[in-house]
Amino acid sequence: MKAYKDLSKEELLTLQKQLNKEYEEAKAKELKLDMSRGKPAASQLDMEMDFMNVLNADSIFKTEAGVDCRNYGIMDGIPEARKLIGDVLGVSADNVIVFGNASLNIMYDTVARSEIFGVMGETPWCKLDKVKFLCPVPGYDRHFAITEQFGIEMINVPMTEDGPDMDMVEELVNTDPAVKGIWCVPKYSNPQGYTYSDETVKRFAALKPAAKDFRIYWDNAYVIHDLYEEKKDTLLDIISECEKAGNPDMVYEFCSTSKVTFPGSGIAALAASKANLDFIKKFMTIQTIGYDKVNQLRHVRYFKDAEGMKAHMMKHAAILRPKFEAVFHVLESELNGLGIGSWTEPKGGYFISFDALEGCAKKIVEKCKEAGVVLTGAGATYPYKKDPKDSNIRLAPSFPTPEELAMATDLFVLCVKIVSVEKLLKEA
Amino acid sequence: MKAYKDLSKEELLTLQKQLNKEYEEAKAKELKLDMSRGKPAASQLDMEMDFMNVLNADSIFKTEAGVDCRNYGIMDGIPEARKLIGDVLGVSADNVIVFGNASLNIMYDTVARSEIFGVMGETPWCKLDKVKFLCPVPGYDRHFAITEQFGIEMINVPMTEDGPDMDMVEELVNTDPAVKGIWCVPKYSNPQGYTYSDETVKRFAALKPAAKDFRIYWDNAYVIHDLYEEKKDTLLDIISECEKAGNPDMVYEFCSTSKVTFPGSGIAALAASKANLDFIKKFMTIQTIGYDKVNQLRHVRYFKDAEGMKAHMMKHAAILRPKFEAVFHVLESELNGLGIGSWTEPKGGYFISFDALEGCAKKIVEKCKEAGVVLTGAGATYPYKKDPKDSNIRLAPSFPTPEELAMATDLFVLCVKIVSVEKLLKEA
Repeated sequence: MKAYKDLSKEELLTLQKQLNKEYEEAKAKELKLDMSRGKPAASQLDMEMDFMNVLNADSIFKTEAGVDCRNYGIMDGIPEARKLIGDVLGVSADNVIVFGNASLNIMYDTVARSEIFGVMGETPWCKLDKVKFLCPVPGYDRHFAITEQFGIEMINVPMTEDGPDMDMVEELVNTDPAVKGIWCVPKYSNPQGYTYSDETVKRFAALKPAAKDFRIYWDNAYVIHDLYEEKKDTLLDIISECEKAGNPDMVYEFCSTSKVTFPGSGIAALAASKANLDFIKKFMTIQTIGYDKVNQLRHVRYFKDAEGMKAHMMKHAAILRPKFEAVFHVLESELNGLGIGSWTEPKGGYFISFDALEGCAKKIVEKCKEAGVVLTGAGATYPYKKDPKDSNIRLAPSFPTPEELAMATDLFVLCVKIVSVEKLLKEA
Repeated sequence: MKAYKDLSKEELLTLQKQLNKEYEEAKAKELKLDMSRGKPAASQLDMEMDFMNVLNADSIFKTEAGVDCRNYGIMDGIPEARKLIGDVLGVSADNVIVFGNASLNIMYDTVARSEIFGVMGETPWCKLDKVKFLCPVPGYDRHFAITEQFGIEMINVPMTEDGPDMDMVEELVNTDPAVKGIWCVPKYSNPQGYTYSDETVKRFAALKPAAKDFRIYWDNAYVIHDLYEEKKDTLLDIISECEKAGNPDMVYEFCSTSKVTFPGSGIAALAASKANLDFIKKFMTIQTIGYDKVNQLRHVRYFKDAEGMKAHMMKHAAILRPKFEAVFHVLESELNGLGIGSWTEPKGGYFISFDALEGCAKKIVEKCKEAGVVLTGAGATYPYKKDPKDSNIRLAPSFPTPEELAMATDLFVLCVKIVSVEKLLKEA
């Protein structure tokens, strides 16, 4: 197949006619498909229904230390849940607080607390003229939404296959005291599925921030969300790397079981240095009496240990893997060599990142929507929803059934072709 | 029995010797009892274990409208949970958002949001020189802790049997624009167990606040927490009263099932006008994707409706009532006529309020602790933990067994007597 840019105007016009015809046929199917969010499929949830039987009226609801999980008490998570999460992250239970059902909520509250009360004795951000966050792009829209709501200035940092552009990160963090944070999804990044290299992690840990209250917001959302048993990405533990580098307090690590058990009904956690956790607990103890210990206990009893949780993730992988591969297959067979788009092929996580020709992303998403396939809004992967090249599209293959996914991806590549031809014709 | 103040010095000294002897005997028992917090007893939790069987692997996890509660979606609570809570509060489901496990967390976040973002377009509180809250006293320590953490100035307003001193509330709210809120526990108030009279509620609803962003923080924590089927207190619905009075946006009402099902594993809610909820949702949608819908569904399926929840509360009452009555009995039989203390006899809620002679509360609590009975810290029922008369003590009879409670209350009245005699001897 010839690259589109090498086609003559006549060839493009002929192609356009053909593609438009295919599009009308596709529209006639009246599809109603959703590839917009990283939502587990019903089949994944059905697969783990035994989770709902782990605690019942006949269960003992006491922790190993004898605390009744049905009653008030224990603000920072039952010890066995802190250990379970600690083992998954590769850190000590002493470095973990287990919260409620959403890591996003922990991140939001962490930023809110910094705004109102400051970070470990530093000036509250709301009293500063300017607060900045670095945002590796493309990235996670809900991260950017938090910093946007608080009026924090967001600075784009380009992603590479090894993680964010560390020259730029070092330059900005080490010289600008207004830079208070950076949003990271270090493993199977959202949306590209890149995992930060060891060198990247070490360079993060070795930062010399101009701001004492600079923190790395390390959202390890996909820590055990591998698609393959054999070819897993590996990620260095940022907490111990920061310790080794003499920056023990520089990182907050977040995770949850939203895509391990049930979204919304999982448990979420923060891992950080003892000094960070002690500071945060002073505020937590006013904000809440404690989180849902029964659900924490349910998780501990179900998985038993980190190995149990990892084994469980392979059952999710068995369902997710064919979906990712189906998308890869359609993209490859339909777009390879055309020069109108490139995409990532992650080995884990929940997303595939697609880069269209410049100025085409919005139109592609719109065209898909018109024919019944909902994608994540174009621009969503950038702060302020502004993709400067209007090129990046996030594909979320998890929710549709494989059959739906094939239809949705077929439509997607068709729209990519149509919008690309339009662009080339305009420029011709 | 003669009032202590009418005893001669000699009589007091004889009495003191006798009481001290009793105290030494009590200490020798090495009690370890806790009357400090409003914590349900294990027997209450054991009584409702069938709650844990309501959802299991074979259950259907869909809402009536077909939403899968196991997955992401629905930020503001599943409709049937909003209806259940609405029916309990006597308001429309449209006026309800169901959150996570703790109403305290909702209250904290409501204050935090007002600090950072303001209330419906008004200036964020963090930008104001002074923000004040009215605090009916004695009151709930965790309310006061929130406003203290945010540096909000707290003004004591005396409680009466009909609720807060409304002359003072009207005077302050209607003239001082720095007054942004008032903490209320309107039914079975913490700690006195008083329920606001209809006139009080109507006067609340008819306030003409100097501050547009003044809100009543109506913590209806004990809305269905009656001890008696027949002689329940009744409380007017503040939401509709505010509407009728032309102040629809003036109130936030909070509640939870922490003392209905399991503390920490219940559901919590906010009820308010649509305008308030719409404003709040703009921030919520950034803070979280949603709360635990499986647990919301569990509550709906277990109780079916508000009547089911009220019937369930009578089972709690059957366990709690004898405990309250045991305390009343000991107080009455041991202290009546002595003139060294007065107490409330609530028909619901979780507490009994005791007023000792001035300057005696701290010493009584300390003396109890020394002999192994932990009470809520003296002063806790006042802002800044400062009871100006050092007189109020909160008794929480729910957690100990009846036998323990008898021992604990016996010790309590003994300590009241000892400390009172000391005081009278000093003054003699």
